[in-house]
Amino acid sequence: MNRILVVLVLGLLSIGQGSGTAGAQVAQARMIPSRILPVPDTVSPALQKLLAQPLSPPPNFPKTADEWRALAAPPPDLAQRLATAEEKFGVTVVPQVLSGVPCYVVTPKAIKAGDRNRLLLGLHSGGWVFGAGAAALDESMVMASMTGYRTIAVDYRMLPDHPFPAAMDDAMTVWKEAIKLAKPDNIAVFGSSVGGSMVLSLVQRAKKEGLPLPGAVMSGTPWSDLSKTGDSYYANDGVDGTLTYEGFWEAVARLYANGRPLKDPQLSPVYGDFDGFPPTYLVTGTRDLFLSNTVRVQQKLLQAGVPMQLEVEEGQPHMGFQDSIGVDAPEGTELYLHVARFFDTHLGH
Amino acid sequence: MNRILVVLVLGLLSIGQGSGTAGAQVAQARMIPSRILPVPDTVSPALQKLLAQPLSPPPNFPKTADEWRALAAPPPDLAQRLATAEEKFGVTVVPQVLSGVPCYVVTPKAIKAGDRNRLLLGLHSGGWVFGAGAAALDESMVMASMTGYRTIAVDYRMLPDHPFPAAMDDAMTVWKEAIKLAKPDNIAVFGSSVGGSMVLSLVQRAKKEGLPLPGAVMSGTPWSDLSKTGDSYYANDGVDGTLTYEGFWEAVARLYANGRPLKDPQLSPVYGDFDGFPPTYLVTGTRDLFLSNTVRVQQKLLQAGVPMQLEVEEGQPHMGFQDSIGVDAPEGTELYLHVARFFDTHLGH
Repeated sequence: MNRILVVLVLGLLSIGQGSGTAGAQVAQARMIPSRILPVPDTVSPALQKLLAQPLSPPPNFPKTADEWRALAAPPPDLAQRLATAEEKFGVTVVPQVLSGVPCYVVTPKAIKAGDRNRLLLGLHSGGWVFGAGAAALDESMVMASMTGYRTIAVDYRMLPDHPFPAAMDDAMTVWKEAIKLAKPDNIAVFGSSVGGSMVLSLVQRAKKEGLPLPGAVMSGTPWSDLSKTGDSYYANDGVDGTLTYEGFWEAVARLYANGRPLKDPQLSPVYGDFDGFPPTYLVTGTRDLFLSNTVRVQQKLLQAGVPMQLEVEEGQPHMGFQDSIGVDAPEGTELYLHVARFFDTHLGH
Repeated sequence: MNRILVVLVLGLLSIGQGSGTAGAQVAQARMIPSRILPVPDTVSPALQKLLAQPLSPPPNFPKTADEWRALAAPPPDLAQRLATAEEKFGVTVVPQVLSGVPCYVVTPKAIKAGDRNRLLLGLHSGGWVFGAGAAALDESMVMASMTGYRTIAVDYRMLPDHPFPAAMDDAMTVWKEAIKLAKPDNIAVFGSSVGGSMVLSLVQRAKKEGLPLPGAVMSGTPWSDLSKTGDSYYANDGVDGTLTYEGFWEAVARLYANGRPLKDPQLSPVYGDFDGFPPTYLVTGTRDLFLSNTVRVQQKLLQAGVPMQLEVEEGQPHMGFQDSIGVDAPEGTELYLHVARFFDTHLGH
């Protein structure tokens, strides 16, 4: 069967039947029957074990200041975990306030001569709810370790007290400090989930403000569209065992938006301008609820002719590559080494 | 929440509980409830209309020679469709037998001076069942049109009379002829579905036989694993409205394998050797049953350090990018222009 020819004819036959409207689309939705989803045997045993864990229900959306504090509280043994992680990743962490914004400077034990003028800026995940304080270091210790570059992790302001644009204002403040510390071409900015979205917003805002752009960026499974728009919000609902949109995260999106439409390009950077973006590494997983949030950004980057790489992880839900690091699954280390190779290729010295 | 630290601790706590076995994996499978899958509004109206079409049931597996002939018969108006397509794509098609293998040479009306020594080799889709004769031209006319390069479409032998290795033998025969017509560095090989799998097998076999390799390849949604291995065989079952593994296609895989294990690397190239591959363009869609077949190849290519690009199409099932061409959805044209740009970057003159 010549598919193109056959479909071409089908297409011609259906001309004149009227194009789809929103109502027609709903009518043409399909029912996907329930099915058994096995733990994939195409991932490492450590990742299989992680994927086999029972789902944890999303948190209730807090109604009081006390409930917020309880929800967002760092684990009580965070300091001890941090020490363990410093040892594990071969880095030292020093808190430092940059132009009023609390940050952590992560320094690898050994920095190669050619990498001394390179710098990373990390924007943490956690949906503007989790990741305050030293927990902001999540990806930054890993990335500092894998690249061997100095890394600044930004402890930006979050919900409930600081909706948009506080977090982005903090990120921009630190970007302006970073370009005093290293040439912009020598700096990469990275982040995942809301951090991945903020990476995209940072570049878009730097362009608007006439600031220099980073030499490369990594945006992991970005929450690039805060509205429930994109096919994987539906297709991977329940397939991604780590998060769902309805309920907690939809409420977070609206609280963060602070009255703005969720599709405002400043909130949902997939609707923003991608012309002139630096080389960009995108990451997602086949089960990711944000698979479409990621590939829709890829389409924008390709349309703009931006050098980019998209890596899709087998069987992984949202943030599976970060969680792989936590359980010592080799998939996580491999991913971050690919990102490090990408930065090494594209950053100046 | 610092996900890496939290998961690290979870990982430590679970040590000693024993690692998963195949039996344990089945026990830990999850039930995914039924759900409504709307037609995505993040694709063009033409593609929305295509995605809204009701599913057609898979064909029955033929039991007699007559049933095979009926199933695989080209559409009666193929010649007329071919003429329409020649006009649409601005190419001329001439049948030509190369070293005993029937082929079609597709020549764009205008070839740029710098592209006269470039050549494409196309391996068609159709699961070794469909696509005989002029239907073998499916992707080749599109690719010739988008690149402006001369293109040879291979009408390789197929089922039921010619199981493995007949199709690959024909592809290799034509590859050996192609490298007499142009420098290998100036030739790209492309194909989708089984054609995409054969592209990978061609490179692996050329390496083994000490033949030169192409300058670049494109492998679209390759059937890289003929066994039902890979997460998207399960996660996208029913989400991909165009094919399912059980029944017809599983029977085709076994007939093609002709008694060999389905995971034989010559049948399922994801298990083969990717060292030294030429620059490779991979394509899949978020709904693709072969999403895992594609991203598992990406992992192998990244591990081997091969320059590559993976493009994932929003909301598209298996072969959605080819079908997009048939209905004049812009997504198809954009994809093939990206592939053309990739070939232009990586091929010699």
